[in-house]
Parts: sequence; C-alpha cells; structure tokens
Amino acid sequence: MDLKEASLKMHREKNGKLEVRSKVKVENQQDLSLAYTPGVAYVCKEIQADPEKAYEYTSKSNMVAVISDGSAVLGLGNIGPYGAIPVMEGKSILMKELAGVDSIPLCLATQDVEEIIKTCKILEPTLGAINLEDISAPRCVEIERRLIKEMNIPVFHDDQHGTSIIVAAAFMNVARLTGRKLSDMTVVMSGTGAAGSMIAKMLKKIGIGTIYASDITGVIDIKKYDSYNFLIKELLDEGTYSTPANHDGTLASILKGADAFIGVSAPNLVSKEMVKSMNDGAIVFAMANPVPEISYDDAKEAGAYIVGSGRSDYPNQINNVLAFPGLFKGALSVRASKINEEMKIAAAEALANVVTDEELSKDNIVPGAFDKRVVPAVSKAVAEAAIRTGVAKITK
Amino acid sequence: MDLKEASLKMHREKNGKLEVRSKVKVENQQDLSLAYTPGVAYVCKEIQADPEKAYEYTSKSNMVAVISDGSAVLGLGNIGPYGAIPVMEGKSILMKELAGVDSIPLCLATQDVEEIIKTCKILEPTLGAINLEDISAPRCVEIERRLIKEMNIPVFHDDQHGTSIIVAAAFMNVARLTGRKLSDMTVVMSGTGAAGSMIAKMLKKIGIGTIYASDITGVIDIKKYDSYNFLIKELLDEGTYSTPANHDGTLASILKGADAFIGVSAPNLVSKEMVKSMNDGAIVFAMANPVPEISYDDAKEAGAYIVGSGRSDYPNQINNVLAFPGLFKGALSVRASKINEEMKIAAAEALANVVTDEELSKDNIVPGAFDKRVVPAVSKAVAEAAIRTGVAKITK
Repeated sequence: MDLKEASLKMHREKNGKLEVRSKVKVENQQDLSLAYTPGVAYVCKEIQADPEKAYEYTSKSNMVAVISDGSAVLGLGNIGPYGAIPVMEGKSILMKELAGVDSIPLCLATQDVEEIIKTCKILEPTLGAINLEDISAPRCVEIERRLIKEMNIPVFHDDQHGTSIIVAAAFMNVARLTGRKLSDMTVVMSGTGAAGSMIAKMLKKIGIGTIYASDITGVIDIKKYDSYNFLIKELLDEGTYSTPANHDGTLASILKGADAFIGVSAPNLVSKEMVKSMNDGAIVFAMANPVPEISYDDAKEAGAYIVGSGRSDYPNQINNVLAFPGLFKGALSVRASKINEEMKIAAAEALANVVTDEELSKDNIVPGAFDKRVVPAVSKAVAEAAIRTGVAKITK
Repeated sequence: MDLKEASLKMHREKNGKLEVRSKVKVENQQDLSLAYTPGVAYVCKEIQADPEKAYEYTSKSNMVAVISDGSAVLGLGNIGPYGAIPVMEGKSILMKELAGVDSIPLCLATQDVEEIIKTCKILEPTLGAINLEDISAPRCVEIERRLIKEMNIPVFHDDQHGTSIIVAAAFMNVARLTGRKLSDMTVVMSGTGAAGSMIAKMLKKIGIGTIYASDITGVIDIKKYDSYNFLIKELLDEGTYSTPANHDGTLASILKGADAFIGVSAPNLVSKEMVKSMNDGAIVFAMANPVPEISYDDAKEAGAYIVGSGRSDYPNQINNVLAFPGLFKGALSVRASKINEEMKIAAAEALANVVTDEELSKDNIVPGAFDKRVVPAVSKAVAEAAIRTGVAKITK
C-alpha cells in the first residue's frame, strides 16, 4: 500500500486523530456532585473572584489551540479551513504525544485578518496558548503581532518561528563543529515569506555577519525598496537583509562566494554549478517540501560540506516537531504571558546542545525528530528564559 | 471534608477535568509520515475536494463545542467566562463519559449577541455540533435561533431545551401512571425565562390543555402584552400561555384548582396552602436550584401526588444529564443538520419509555441520571426522528 492509501485508510478508520477524555470518573451521583452540580459552583466562584485561578482549577493551564484559516496549508496553498483540519489535528496530537500538552484544532471559516484576530481574542478564557498555523504571509505576521500585543497568553505562529529556531540551532552547531565564526559568514536566503523572513531575523540575532535574499521578484535590493511588502521593507530597514554590491538579479549571482544557502522557496532552484561557485565548506539547507531547491546528493557532489532539508529520508532533517512541543510546554509550565525572542533563542541553544560533542558531525547537525532528550531540554530552557526576561507568572 | 472543599481539591489536583488524547501512535518517522507530513497532504486534498469528507477523515463527526459567555451560570448569575469554565468542562466530560461524544469547552470573552453568533459561525469547520450553555435569556433564544438558521451543524441550547425534554417525559409518564389525559390538565408555570418558556412550548406540543404562567412581574396576562419581552409575547401569540379568567396577579391565585405546578424560578415561592388549593392528585415539579420553590416533604404533606425537583437527594430528579448526551450522540450519528422539535419529542418519548410499567411509580416517574439504558434509547430515537424528518445526512 502506498503512502496515500495508507494515510487515507488510517484517518478513515480512526475517524480523526484525536479525542477528548475525562480525567475524572463520573459514574455515580457522588462523582457528579463533585465534578458538576452542585459542587462545581464553589469552583466557579473561586475563579470569578480571581480569574487567574482558572490556571489552577481548569484545563486552561495546559491547553493550546492550533488555529488556522487554511490559507497556506503545507505546500498545498489556500485549501480552506476544512482541508486544513487533518494538519491541525496532526499538530495537536504531536503536542500531546511528544510533550504532554493538550491541544485542540480550530479551523476558522474566515480569512479576514480582523475577524481572525477578533476570534482568537474572544477564545482567550479557555486557552493557555495559541499556536497559529498555515496562515498565508504577510497576513500571518500582522495577525501574530497584533495578538501578541492584545492577548495575555502566548501566541506563536509556528510557520514563522519554528523553522527559524531549528535553523539557528543548526548554525550554532555548524560553528561548534567547524570552528567558524558566525560573524564571518555570508548567508544567502531564497524565499522572503514568513518562514524565510523569520529565519533571517533569527540568524542575524545569533550573529550571522551578512544576509542576502532573493525571491520570485529577484534579488532583494534596497534600490527596489518601494516595491516590497512591509515585511521585506522591515528587514531592509533593520539591516537584516543587506544588498549585495554586485548582482544581476539572479540567485546564482549572489551565491558566488557565499558561505551558506538557505532555501524556503521552490523545487530545483539551485544547480550543482551554483553550489560549486560558493565558498569552500559550503552549507546548504534546501527546505522546499517535498522537493528541495537542490537534492542532498547533488549538493554533496557539488562540494557542499553540510546539507540539510525538510526530508526525513536524508541527514539533517529540519523538522518543526523539534521546536513547538517543547516550546509550548516550557511557556505553559511557567505561565508565560508571551513567547519572546530570548525564549526562542534559548530553545535554539537547547536544541543545539542536545547533540553532544561525540555525536556532532556533518550529517548530524541537529537532533532527530524523535530524540527523547529534545522536549525536556527545550522546555526547561524556554521556561528559564521566560523567568529571566520577566514574562513568567510562575518564577520558581 | 464538605462538598466545597472536596470539589475544590479535586479540581486543583486534576488541574482541570479534561485532556485531549491522540487516537494514533506517533513514535517514529513512519507514524509521523502517516499522521502528519507528508501523508496528511493526501487527506487534506480529499477534504478540499469535498468538505463533507471532514466527517470521515477528521474528529469533526464526533466533536461538540460547549460554548458559553458566562452570563447565566447555574444559579450564580453573570459570573463571566472564566468563572464558567468548570461548568463547561463538566458538560464536556459528561458528554464523553455518558455517551462517548468528544467535546471541548469554549468560554467566550464577549457577551455581545452579534459577536457570539459570529464566533460560533467562524468555528463551524472543526465542529460536529454546538451545545450553547448558560447564556442569559432572552439573548440565548435569539442566539440559538440565528445559529440554527445560519449554520449547517446542530446547535442546541441545553438550558432552553434540556429541562423541557425531561419535563415532557415526566408528563408522558404521569399520563401513563394515572390514566389522566394531558389535554384535560391545567399547568401553572413559575418562571418565564429560557427554560420556563421552552418547557411551556414543549408541554403544549405534547398535548397539555391549558398553561398559565407567572414571573417576577406577576401573572402573565394578555392585557399587559406591551410590557413583555419578545419571548413572552411569542408564547401569548401562539397560544402557549393562556390568560387565567380570574386572578389577582399572584401565583397563589392561579394555582387554585390547577393540576400541576412547574417551577423554574426562585426558592420558597410556593406554600403548603397553595399546594392544598390545587386539584386532587396534584403534580409539583419545583426545580429552583439548590433550594426549590417548595420542598419535597412540604409538597407531599400538602397532598401533592407526584413531586419532583432538581435535587439528587429526593425522588424524581429532573436532571439535564438525562437528555443532552444521548441527544448529541443521536444527532451526530446520522450527521443531522439540526436538532428539530420532532427529535426533542422523540428524546422525551424514549426517556419516558426507559421506565418500564413495572418500575413506574409516583416516586419513579423519570429514569435515574446514571441509568445505563438512557443514552442508547435517547440516541436511537433521536437518530430515527432525524431520518424521518429529513435532516439526517446518513439515512441507514
């Protein structure tokens, strides 16, 4: 049976991937009077007097909603909220299976930015955190920023930040493995969407020297500033993107002499010749899915030293499951009001350090998706960073 | 330990009453590729092509959201969405424990009618049905009616219809036990809120002859028509409420010679003398909670034949858990697009018939809350009624 048939069959037979379970018995009148009326009224009154107690007496403290409008699902595009449900259920069960975090998928019948923001805010009382998912760029950036400002619980768009945390961890380990300084490196990005933008920001924050970018419009160049959306403008303004001195508008022209390539764009954009034109010891993370910008084998043959992708059948898989379960677990464990930059960097450092000196190699630059050390390490580091930066309500 | 301490302790120790569980293993790369990427993409595409397939491939088919704005929680009043969470979690776990229906509590940070309606509609894709709960009257009636009209999944406000179904079942069994005709009976209602109004409508529908009502403004009288809210006006217009020929505005004056009293109002409104003034074989359902309009013992001493209340420590408990779990299970089992009057009456009939001729007595007029026969009987009857009335998508 091929993957398509096997996946359809599994989903059909299970009739969806998640269920809601009671943590208490309700078998007789005594159980009912404790869990429901009349006993529950006392619990309601405690929380009414101090809403913060919802964290203590209800499932809020461990409850993440995975919210999507279905506008940018996997590589499938704008397939709408119904088509998106299986992905959100998948994230929900990963949250539980990998990190013990309860999670409900909610796919919204609107793609209006203001309606999405309003809906998330209205849902706040029952939720411990929100994982935004598969919302198209640059709308997703606006939605996430507004919600971070306007809500009292962590809001995190995994498509923006999940990959950036893992790529940052990978570069920390590149430096550790090769002894190269991040500040000496020139990185070329292909793709300026949500993921690409946040990877660039994160790499700049951990010390990468120079970042050039290109997208479907060509090389990002300050001279074309007025033609860009707010996100590209912002990255130019803050100096995350630099404009290459010499280029002819093509990706090939800016890859010459670069130290690293990061692709979050489209299949087969990078040739072996292009990799050959890069500096010695080139690093290639080609993460277009399922077909990368260049295959592992081609990149290797062209002389790349470290090659990673989104694929599980090649070394160095950059898989979002490495970040979000531990990140939410850590943020919830200290009742963080947000997930800030320091917490994301702490997650990247923890992830990098899961790989021991003995394990670290050019084909083992990040942990595997099912490495049991990942969630405890990431959640601990994230919780500590939340406390350190003053966004945690539990500080011991 | 008293009930308050025991309930607080249980909620605190469990840290909320529900959790979300995965129905599939995710322990290795193979599991991941089936439940998440890349396999899940095939499932997404199937649903994108035909959104109805969400019922087959996702948890939608068995997922009820319990939605409240916290404006009328139990007898506590408008305690807001945070205080309401423990009640909604209670309903959710009852749904699962009694009927195997998955359910998520969602308490909304708004009490604006239009915003509540909008939010529910936006949440439709992931949900199989909505159980509205503890929303104040008459706003709850408007919200439910609009949602029934504007959504494609069943929407049911339990506070309106739950009690009415069980009271209707009780009256069916009163007729069976006593041989009296419902059409000969005069029923006096105390309370014209959501529950009272829907009980009156349901009783009229099953054949009760005459219904008088009173509330905090006195006896409901057609002469005061202009002073009433839309709901009381509607019940007068359609002839559910009759205006008593002789009354002095007091509940006592209309109870004289009545066959039955139904209270969904406030403690201690009915005296023994008032019960004595009723017809022989008086029926008294005094459901104010936790202190009824008249106690079981007082009503009995005053000569009432059948006495019921909301309390579990006396006979004939009118408990909403008798209706909603089986009702939702039945509606979901045939993918009903709504829960219509016929389905509610079928639920009442099924509930009445769970009590066998041998079991039926004046102190055993409805089944107990934990009677294992209830959910199967109610859900089967509801499913059949949905098919019969053409609102079911699964018809075999």
